[in-house]
Amino acid sequence: MSFQTFTNLTTPQLGPPRLARLRQVMADRGIDGFLVPRADAHQGEYVAPRDARLAWLTGFTGSAGSCAVMADRAALFVDGRYTLQAKAQVDTSAFEIASVPATSPADWLAAHMPRGATLAYDPWLHVRKDIRTLADRLQPQGVTVVPTDNLIDAIWDDQPPPPEGSVRVQPTDFAGKTHDAKRSEIAAALREAGTTCHILTLPDSLSWLLNIRGEDIERNPVVHGFAILHDDARVDLFSKLEKFDDTVRDHLGPQVALNPVTALADAAGALKGPVGLDDATAPVWFAHRLRDQGTEIRWQRDPCILPKACKTPAEQEGARTAQMRDAVAMVEFLSWLDQKAPLGVLTEIDVVRELETRRRATNALKDISFETICGAGPHGAIVHYRVSEATDRPVKPGELLLVDSGGQYSDGTTDITRTVSVGPVPEDAKKPYTLVLKGMIAISRARWPEGLAGRDLDALARCALWQAGMDYDHGTGHGVGAYLSVHEGPQNLSRRGTEPLRPGMILSNEPGYYREGAFGIRIENLVVVQPPSRPEGGDREMLGFETLTFVPIDTRLIDTNLMTKAEIAWLNAYHAEVRARLTGRLSVEDAAWLETATQDI
Amino acid sequence: MSFQTFTNLTTPQLGPPRLARLRQVMADRGIDGFLVPRADAHQGEYVAPRDARLAWLTGFTGSAGSCAVMADRAALFVDGRYTLQAKAQVDTSAFEIASVPATSPADWLAAHMPRGATLAYDPWLHVRKDIRTLADRLQPQGVTVVPTDNLIDAIWDDQPPPPEGSVRVQPTDFAGKTHDAKRSEIAAALREAGTTCHILTLPDSLSWLLNIRGEDIERNPVVHGFAILHDDARVDLFSKLEKFDDTVRDHLGPQVALNPVTALADAAGALKGPVGLDDATAPVWFAHRLRDQGTEIRWQRDPCILPKACKTPAEQEGARTAQMRDAVAMVEFLSWLDQKAPLGVLTEIDVVRELETRRRATNALKDISFETICGAGPHGAIVHYRVSEATDRPVKPGELLLVDSGGQYSDGTTDITRTVSVGPVPEDAKKPYTLVLKGMIAISRARWPEGLAGRDLDALARCALWQAGMDYDHGTGHGVGAYLSVHEGPQNLSRRGTEPLRPGMILSNEPGYYREGAFGIRIENLVVVQPPSRPEGGDREMLGFETLTFVPIDTRLIDTNLMTKAEIAWLNAYHAEVRARLTGRLSVEDAAWLETATQDI
Repeated sequence: MSFQTFTNLTTPQLGPPRLARLRQVMADRGIDGFLVPRADAHQGEYVAPRDARLAWLTGFTGSAGSCAVMADRAALFVDGRYTLQAKAQVDTSAFEIASVPATSPADWLAAHMPRGATLAYDPWLHVRKDIRTLADRLQPQGVTVVPTDNLIDAIWDDQPPPPEGSVRVQPTDFAGKTHDAKRSEIAAALREAGTTCHILTLPDSLSWLLNIRGEDIERNPVVHGFAILHDDARVDLFSKLEKFDDTVRDHLGPQVALNPVTALADAAGALKGPVGLDDATAPVWFAHRLRDQGTEIRWQRDPCILPKACKTPAEQEGARTAQMRDAVAMVEFLSWLDQKAPLGVLTEIDVVRELETRRRATNALKDISFETICGAGPHGAIVHYRVSEATDRPVKPGELLLVDSGGQYSDGTTDITRTVSVGPVPEDAKKPYTLVLKGMIAISRARWPEGLAGRDLDALARCALWQAGMDYDHGTGHGVGAYLSVHEGPQNLSRRGTEPLRPGMILSNEPGYYREGAFGIRIENLVVVQPPSRPEGGDREMLGFETLTFVPIDTRLIDTNLMTKAEIAWLNAYHAEVRARLTGRLSVEDAAWLETATQDI
Repeated sequence: MSFQTFTNLTTPQLGPPRLARLRQVMADRGIDGFLVPRADAHQGEYVAPRDARLAWLTGFTGSAGSCAVMADRAALFVDGRYTLQAKAQVDTSAFEIASVPATSPADWLAAHMPRGATLAYDPWLHVRKDIRTLADRLQPQGVTVVPTDNLIDAIWDDQPPPPEGSVRVQPTDFAGKTHDAKRSEIAAALREAGTTCHILTLPDSLSWLLNIRGEDIERNPVVHGFAILHDDARVDLFSKLEKFDDTVRDHLGPQVALNPVTALADAAGALKGPVGLDDATAPVWFAHRLRDQGTEIRWQRDPCILPKACKTPAEQEGARTAQMRDAVAMVEFLSWLDQKAPLGVLTEIDVVRELETRRRATNALKDISFETICGAGPHGAIVHYRVSEATDRPVKPGELLLVDSGGQYSDGTTDITRTVSVGPVPEDAKKPYTLVLKGMIAISRARWPEGLAGRDLDALARCALWQAGMDYDHGTGHGVGAYLSVHEGPQNLSRRGTEPLRPGMILSNEPGYYREGAFGIRIENLVVVQPPSRPEGGDREMLGFETLTFVPIDTRLIDTNLMTKAEIAWLNAYHAEVRARLTGRLSVEDAAWLETATQDI
């Protein structure tokens, strides 16, 4: 069995009867409107089957969206990347499809809810600012916005149980720091900030803090739960007890008290303030509970986020090891692809399967880090394309193939994109491919003074494309976890990136270009921020990136006339390094392929 | 007589007796502390002689700073660029010199003012947030922060009168829009925002709005005064009536009521709200007055700032004409400099005088747009260096000379920096010079999508320097007015630039590099943002810059090995354009010099 599947189990016909049941329970309780978000109580990218309420109600399986239900109408709100998918998965006679940000749930509700109506929401699934936005918009119109228990859970007869994936210890050799040390350091920061505790609601925060990993949801090896970190470094952990065996309990030790999730409400109610809560991610339930107790809340960022982002030397070393393992799988895959694809015998699904097979052959793959994006020809231009049996497309000679994938290993999380020419090189792709590569090299080579954020560097990745009237509608890079989420904040490389880049932060470096109906190009390496050092001949210290990913970049698509000497030198040195690191770990055939693929340009 | 002078009239010995008189009047009034800022009521860079209260009291003549006086101590607060100058100009036995931001006035006062003390300030000279910062810091310590009339004015016997420079009409041919049209457009915006009027406190805003210029302060051709722009497009102007002759009164017409400044207090008191005020620049006096009347205030940006920044086609054409006129003077100057300087017979003052003489010879110079910065050798590394008789230095062969200067012409304001090699080229300057030039070219050539701000482009100017461990501690560029202030917001190119760049905005493009004790390098052109257009072969529209300044860049200092083909092509095309535009306007000798100076590299 493989991690990735290619069926989109979509049952639009189940939507209307479920909607009718929901409306019945709404009527019974005197509720005129109810919100069903995609999010669970942890605001992550993936949810457990139990929490897939939006999909259960509407049929829509995308990773972002929400539904607003009234007695006489219902709307599913999705962003541009999911409009087509929503139409295919949802019975549009029952659910109107609304596109955000053009239409926000607040706008739609304001247009339809009458004065005196009541809008209800589950306070575990929404953060404070979202509820504030709704209330600010609707209450002046006489609409009351109230919390309730979850009405989907009330009608979902065969709702799956909470996840019960077993918990494993993340060894200190990989984490680089004991959970004792982490708890002590953050407790000191809490005392400094004058808070008695912080309520952690993000699974990756508590998994990082306690050096544990789980199997509660796919792709992200986190432990689902909540934790209260006290200013004396004790932790009250709330999770399903059955997931923790003796080894893990020993690892957690006496300073970490394990409690059932059912104990959380009373524990939160008994806290003495000021209590730290993160406005961006904490369920508004906590704010209500603490307010009702008269407990002071300090809205502050989850104190695990920044230290988690700045990887320890051990985590960086783990990332390098994981990358080398992953690179062997990638080179075997690219060698295979270069042999088979030009014959015109492959489809996108074949490609995805082969790549997962190569990664599994490392015997170290815990999971893929996200569903592989494999777009042949025009599918490459769909930025969030996921191949299914319904969309599978032959990989045709003369076209580009874009493959964006990654693996979860105990020592690190990988994420890599390569765009390759299948057989004869499509000439019109060479210019944009070269411009994308120039951007990727510019970030790889960049040096900059301390204090700058992703926003300050983003232009380096784009300026060559901009000159040519081209651009891409996604960030240049995202943070990456250490055997945690492949999308991890707070750092990123984008116009919205205002978090200063610090040594140890791992980011992706993935400029792209997409020509609708024709092809997509993206080239992605992972990089890690290096401590400041003084370039030779200079008078100031500068930060910089170390490249972590060593896999050949298709040189057949490069127009060398568009490259500077410095860029060509970087690429040749990169390929020499790829050869030096990987040749000895490959079969004779794959090593020969690598030798050719990494020739100087 | 020339605009620029070279004497620093500094009389430290006058400080202590004046300080004693101020303390006497403070004691008489029961005031324990008094603030004397450099700013006048208009928060500009230059002040009229009457408003030079800080210089009168302390001797310090820098363009930024403030003084806090208590009965037993007094401190002058200046930033890093003025620390040395302050020590030279001020009697430090009477005034402690404090360096901001290390020591802020609020911190210093908090350390020294006892519980129960009273700190007084002139509410015309401070903006609301500065007073808030002080009050937030001092009131918890039991210090009362109160407005008062100006105590310096009370003791300054021979204080000069308010400026009386005559007002002139800025012709519509240059402004590109009548003041009728400007007033109507902004009044519509006020109605849209729901404010009945906006109080304009910035002289360049009201000068722009009414198409008038003045002679009230040096370097900036603005009319000092205040104005209330009503939502029906009427303006109440408050200024010294004697400055307005019949021609100007006819130009202003019946919609603009001219009032003495003494009428302002009653007029402001009679306003019906909501009244618009700009938090960043309005004297806190207005906030007090409106609050006392119970009049609602809307804190919003001065509505003239953005339309003033986006130059009309006529203003852009004026800028081009002014630049060509200025370029002729600059080339004559550079040709003269190249002949004389290598002989070792010039000093910095000689250079400044010759440049002003060349600009005056255009017969169009209204003023210089700021004191010329002329730094030979190590003086070039002092970013804000102004030569005086005390600091004047020979221009020595084998050194660099940095000259940053500009002219005020009726059709436009110029600002240009060139760094030239005097005689033999100093080899160690070639690398940083070339890296600075690469940054300047990168900005000149940049294209970018709409919505981006200076912060998003700043890295393009610096990345070549960063690679080499070099940087500069000033912005890459500032906004420039149309025959107004040479430093004009809201746009800029810097890490702090968050205002989206819009077509018509004029900016400087001036990366630099400074090696303390050795040399300074800066290369500056003015550029204007062009409307979006689609680069050939591209699929998206991009903004871009048109270069306005056409004066040769010293090619003897370039290390061509560090330049890309595209950069070399840009520079050669630029120099060809310089030749084509200027040759016909020069003497035979200067044309011959230009021919050599603009040869392809």
